[in-house]
Amino acid sequence: MTKFKPPTLKAKRLGIDTHEEPIVYMREDCNICRSEGFRARSQVEIISKHKQILATLNTVSSNLLTPDEAGLSEAAWRLLGARSGENLTFAHPLPVLSLSFVRSKVYGNALNLEQFTEIFQDISRGRYQDIHLAAFVTACTDNRLTVDEITYMTKAMVSIGEQLHWPTQPVVDKHSVGGLPGSCTTPVVVAILAACGLTIPKTSSRAITSPAGTADTMETLAPVSLTLAEMRRVVEKEGGCLVWGNSVNLSPADDVIIGVERALDIDNEGQLIASILSKKAAAGSTHVLIDFPVGDTAKIRSLEVAQHLEALLTTVGTAIGLHTKVMMTDGMQPMGRGIGPVLEAQDILAILQNHKTAPPQLRDKIITFAGTLLEMSSVASESMGMALATETLENGNAWRKFQAICSAQGGMRKLTKAPFTHEITAKHAGRFEQINNRILAKLAKLAGAPGAPSAGLEYHVRLGEMLDKHQPILTLHAETEGELHYALDYFGQHEKELFTLKNPE
Amino acid sequence: MTKFKPPTLKAKRLGIDTHEEPIVYMREDCNICRSEGFRARSQVEIISKHKQILATLNTVSSNLLTPDEAGLSEAAWRLLGARSGENLTFAHPLPVLSLSFVRSKVYGNALNLEQFTEIFQDISRGRYQDIHLAAFVTACTDNRLTVDEITYMTKAMVSIGEQLHWPTQPVVDKHSVGGLPGSCTTPVVVAILAACGLTIPKTSSRAITSPAGTADTMETLAPVSLTLAEMRRVVEKEGGCLVWGNSVNLSPADDVIIGVERALDIDNEGQLIASILSKKAAAGSTHVLIDFPVGDTAKIRSLEVAQHLEALLTTVGTAIGLHTKVMMTDGMQPMGRGIGPVLEAQDILAILQNHKTAPPQLRDKIITFAGTLLEMSSVASESMGMALATETLENGNAWRKFQAICSAQGGMRKLTKAPFTHEITAKHAGRFEQINNRILAKLAKLAGAPGAPSAGLEYHVRLGEMLDKHQPILTLHAETEGELHYALDYFGQHEKELFTLKNPE
Repeated sequence: MTKFKPPTLKAKRLGIDTHEEPIVYMREDCNICRSEGFRARSQVEIISKHKQILATLNTVSSNLLTPDEAGLSEAAWRLLGARSGENLTFAHPLPVLSLSFVRSKVYGNALNLEQFTEIFQDISRGRYQDIHLAAFVTACTDNRLTVDEITYMTKAMVSIGEQLHWPTQPVVDKHSVGGLPGSCTTPVVVAILAACGLTIPKTSSRAITSPAGTADTMETLAPVSLTLAEMRRVVEKEGGCLVWGNSVNLSPADDVIIGVERALDIDNEGQLIASILSKKAAAGSTHVLIDFPVGDTAKIRSLEVAQHLEALLTTVGTAIGLHTKVMMTDGMQPMGRGIGPVLEAQDILAILQNHKTAPPQLRDKIITFAGTLLEMSSVASESMGMALATETLENGNAWRKFQAICSAQGGMRKLTKAPFTHEITAKHAGRFEQINNRILAKLAKLAGAPGAPSAGLEYHVRLGEMLDKHQPILTLHAETEGELHYALDYFGQHEKELFTLKNPE
Repeated sequence: MTKFKPPTLKAKRLGIDTHEEPIVYMREDCNICRSEGFRARSQVEIISKHKQILATLNTVSSNLLTPDEAGLSEAAWRLLGARSGENLTFAHPLPVLSLSFVRSKVYGNALNLEQFTEIFQDISRGRYQDIHLAAFVTACTDNRLTVDEITYMTKAMVSIGEQLHWPTQPVVDKHSVGGLPGSCTTPVVVAILAACGLTIPKTSSRAITSPAGTADTMETLAPVSLTLAEMRRVVEKEGGCLVWGNSVNLSPADDVIIGVERALDIDNEGQLIASILSKKAAAGSTHVLIDFPVGDTAKIRSLEVAQHLEALLTTVGTAIGLHTKVMMTDGMQPMGRGIGPVLEAQDILAILQNHKTAPPQLRDKIITFAGTLLEMSSVASESMGMALATETLENGNAWRKFQAICSAQGGMRKLTKAPFTHEITAKHAGRFEQINNRILAKLAKLAGAPGAPSAGLEYHVRLGEMLDKHQPILTLHAETEGELHYALDYFGQHEKELFTLKNPE
């Protein structure tokens, strides 16, 4: 056997956006493919002078590349930190050993802390392909994790990311399990609590299966992609912040998993709990309030499910040293008017500025959350929390604090407006009796939310209300004509399930 | 709202091989992406004059394309049957409704015949992304399907593909559950049975997790990618055939699912049964013999698992009208000498030609299978099957029939030889006591099998044999130096688990 020397190829940025998957493009007749036996869809290790990443190979049979070039997708280019023309070497990937734990989980076995840690470490390093992530997510869905496993999962997620520590305690946090569109309370709750002197280092996620996550909504008002150091400075200055969790790397594996859950449109209980609690623990929180909207068509459909989840959350919370309180709220219909990043931000500004257009149900919910956390953290005495929260909102302290936070995060932004709108009105007079939140969310997503920030819809009515003929029920907002059409097509197919307008007797 | 007219882009073949996933490349600033709101990883419907397919979008920010061109990957080009420069229009995909059944299965619900049929129909039309397939496969693994569900799955698979009918019965078939490398019996069994006048329209798969499927091995000896019409002609002329199942489209969804199972390295019981029986039923078979190699490191590890699978197979077989018999065989070590397509084909030729190099254990197994099927189909009377099979082999009838089948399939091929080999020998004298079939298979795969047909390994010894120092145990074969190195690295890491050579006392 002759001595084996791996040849090199020159890096070329192809400008192809494959989303998060790193792809390397090589001529099928290049030395590397021939000597290493690489074929389309092989996983290959790309090695530059400074870094090494795993990428999926697409072979090229045209003149897109010369045989001494390796093309990189945008994700591969970014992950590798490549420079144009630099020499790259290639190798068969080391086997991803933690995949055997995933297979073990697929076959119904329980995993331990070390196994979850290795899985999340490999995920956060980009060593899992999408199908592996999909198999892992599926294998953990539908109560297939024990309480111990959820605890291990949570601890593993905390241990592989960055962790924050604060000089004073308590450090509070608030989270909504979500699933109810148009119910963004967090920005106002943070403003009230920080205005009352509490520390609340809030990180939020982008939408998973909803039309807008808190981070999507906040991003229309201020930058949210802060580094950990920038986030720390904002909290030290203002007591609170509103940043996107991914950018501060508090739970790097979780962010990747959420992407797959979104594409599969499934949420998995253990993953949900680990995802919530790991980020709170990593952010240095001591007291956490969790909102469960319960309703037929919300994410949590029954009190039974809610109580099961509550027990799991408080058990796992205690196991990792967090004071955790769950609050069940009405999940029958959106709390606010807007659904979609910009439209929800409008509701938030109306509440902070004490406008008469502020949606009262959303405002009440915010005051309840803020009040409860003021009591949990002993800033307000028992049963005095809501009064203090209301006062902080009405005297303008919360609005001033919110502006200060936005300014500390890089400056407050002006909201944009979607160029295409369409009003859906009552075909006859009647009582508005039921709304399907899932179809409502889907409609907003088809209109472009959250990718198109000003897209979504406005929900103009309330359950139980008597409507006149032609009274507006919804207004769709879209940034492109195609998306507006797509949403309207879907509306046409699902109008009957979306809401019930009962004929007057 | 203005009237909406979708613009077009010109088709451009980019020569990028993405394996089976159809990808469309468009400038992110083109009219379509802007008007439709398409982003990287969007699923888009591509519509040509004659056809419509679903593809995944990669956006391009470089001059790879002009804003009026749409690039297509090789898979997309093939599926669409595109011509260079033709006008293409694009639309948001219709929602894939059967994905809600997949989600239902993920949450542990049982599916019915209609639901499985819709799932497989969408899969066979390329409407599932890899993550959806991975979620479906995972959700069906580990006994998560009832016997009824496996029956529905089998019937659904039959109904969505092509089906064959034959003028005379019985029509026989033989299948091995596999998992034991180096044990390809099918080509010789088919030759014996067809020489005895039986109809055996045999389709085989390529490797799932093994170094060589029967189709991979046969392809080194004759063309196996026949159309259904070609397959029918071969069987009408010669009584039997040996073709690749995918090419005749007998179970189109199954082939896609197998690709994902291979990447995940999991086999799922219900899918396994549906996969086997649906292809037999679609091929028009009436009597089926199924081989279960049982051994510590074979696919089926214990008699208990084998009996469970046997019960399922015969129950589902009966439910769809097939006479099904399961035979458990020794799965402790490879039956033949070669592992890998060409190396296994060498064993087959040695047996057919009655060479003295023919591996005796593999020959015995073939005679047992052929004899049993001769009895099941009443061509031989009870206990006379093996004698007839042996005679057909020894008098050259099987070899002549095999040559006739190869010739009818397009002509017999000459075997190639791998340019790189490496011999692994005994480090000391001793008794050869144990071999790990999984590591053996992995070694052959790392050497390049089955993608590189002449790659793999030869297994020179038998369990219980006394070896001299330096006696050859294995010979690795590879088509590239890189693959040989990769296999040798792996061997170095796993030598101790691979086999046990006991010191003489």
